[in-house]
Amino acid sequence: MIRAEGAWIFLNDRFVEKEQARISVFDHGFLYGDGVYETLRAYQGRIFLLERHLARLRRSCDLIGLTLPVKDDDWVFIISEILIRNGLEDAGLRLTISRGEGELGIDPGLCARPTVVVMAKSLVPYPARMREQGVRLQIVSVRRNPQSAQSPQIKSLSFLNNILAKQEAVQAGAYDALMLNMDGYLTECTTSNIFFVANQRLHTPSVACGILEGITREVVIELARGLGIEVNEGAYPAEELLQADECFMTNTGLEVMAVSRIGEYPIGQGKGGRITMELWRAFQQNLERFLGPCVTAPQA
Amino acid sequence: MIRAEGAWIFLNDRFVEKEQARISVFDHGFLYGDGVYETLRAYQGRIFLLERHLARLRRSCDLIGLTLPVKDDDWVFIISEILIRNGLEDAGLRLTISRGEGELGIDPGLCARPTVVVMAKSLVPYPARMREQGVRLQIVSVRRNPQSAQSPQIKSLSFLNNILAKQEAVQAGAYDALMLNMDGYLTECTTSNIFFVANQRLHTPSVACGILEGITREVVIELARGLGIEVNEGAYPAEELLQADECFMTNTGLEVMAVSRIGEYPIGQGKGGRITMELWRAFQQNLERFLGPCVTAPQA
Repeated sequence: MIRAEGAWIFLNDRFVEKEQARISVFDHGFLYGDGVYETLRAYQGRIFLLERHLARLRRSCDLIGLTLPVKDDDWVFIISEILIRNGLEDAGLRLTISRGEGELGIDPGLCARPTVVVMAKSLVPYPARMREQGVRLQIVSVRRNPQSAQSPQIKSLSFLNNILAKQEAVQAGAYDALMLNMDGYLTECTTSNIFFVANQRLHTPSVACGILEGITREVVIELARGLGIEVNEGAYPAEELLQADECFMTNTGLEVMAVSRIGEYPIGQGKGGRITMELWRAFQQNLERFLGPCVTAPQA
Repeated sequence: MIRAEGAWIFLNDRFVEKEQARISVFDHGFLYGDGVYETLRAYQGRIFLLERHLARLRRSCDLIGLTLPVKDDDWVFIISEILIRNGLEDAGLRLTISRGEGELGIDPGLCARPTVVVMAKSLVPYPARMREQGVRLQIVSVRRNPQSAQSPQIKSLSFLNNILAKQEAVQAGAYDALMLNMDGYLTECTTSNIFFVANQRLHTPSVACGILEGITREVVIELARGLGIEVNEGAYPAEELLQADECFMTNTGLEVMAVSRIGEYPIGQGKGGRITMELWRAFQQNLERFLGPCVTAPQA
């Protein structure tokens, strides 16, 4: 049965229509941002690097001391079903695990059972012109949460740091924010990693700078090395980026997106650069090997 | 009509029973911890420093660019009604304002209308023995969110920083966590401010250290000065606290709570100190002038 897209949501133990997908106001995800999430992408019913995404979800859970209440096999069933019920083949999915319902108080021990939510939405491809021209980023005054306070490696529901950064960037007319760490080095955008090209070499902030090591980031590093491009992970001040020849962002939804401007400064030619486009094509050409089996086809 | 306590919740525009107090899984409070809250206290139906709490709620809203959808007069009605419906006179209340329901994405522009939730619960007085003996705090490895990343002055739903700190403290057998800032100076506990006494003077971390300036903190500073006790606000390393004669925490619920131990180190005599007890008595004796009119009495 195919319904209007995005109309079905998985909530704890069953599929409900969007209007019925409601949780208690005592859910600690709502009261305290206590929980984690993961974003997945389906291409023609095939999930992009599902194992790596589920491994990262388990790590996020571990880092906040939350027992993931869904087994890997069950994820496959839920993901398959949410796509089929919503009539989606190319989709973005979000898996959310909150601490669950509990009395007021921040101690996780107050919550007996985590809340699990899975939602899916169709994805409209980014316009070709946007990919060619690239987007504008703003280096914002909001610093990335330091690892010692709230590690960016926890993909958590407490997202205010990134929201404040995004607001500042949008007010400046930019597509997204680029945040520095407390030491003034580049980290990441609000939901994506950043790369730049200088002297034909690729550079990206290292994990030690305080970033979520994106799965598309890992793929791009692998692809670049396969193409004979040297990749450096390190601590880079903003000035180094401003003098770069090319810049791009990566995440599950954007894949590889050219950045043509940082604030008022054009990067390189002010549009998607040669290596950026080469990596985006390589991503497309190699996509097949990153995809699992189709989960939306009728079973044999 | 008096129901079982805590059974009625205010949600957006009406009072609903707890089981019906449900929000969409698309609420950005749940998805992204995008929202703010405030905690109030009622003594015999009279609210402790309501104006100051509402002013702080407005400030939290301003700091995240959220338009508070409730006017001050309406708060008084809602607070009155939530206490009456739940049959409560001495209670803790929580006002929660989230960004509201919206599509996936962190841009607040996706949400048309904030979600408003008010809940109340009865308060059991802390045992006299706990007040006399004091509690144990743990200085945790989790650092307080720096102001440049996510200001502690925003009383926000993105509370993971404090939750991680609390977990570490509870695992160490302590009552609560005491966090240092990125420079290694004392800040605050997970939901309370900290004071210590050395050389008959009171010391508390300054706002510049990265704290939420608690309303009970302000009251205690005022009371201490009234008693002729010198109060210093500054940047203090943990070592200074460990050598102190007395220590206590303050918040709306705890009022003034003695701290007798920091990790393994006893503070002073290892129980509530003389000035701590003097301030707690002063708080009780002066309480009357911090309370508004009774909101639970039948109207004349």
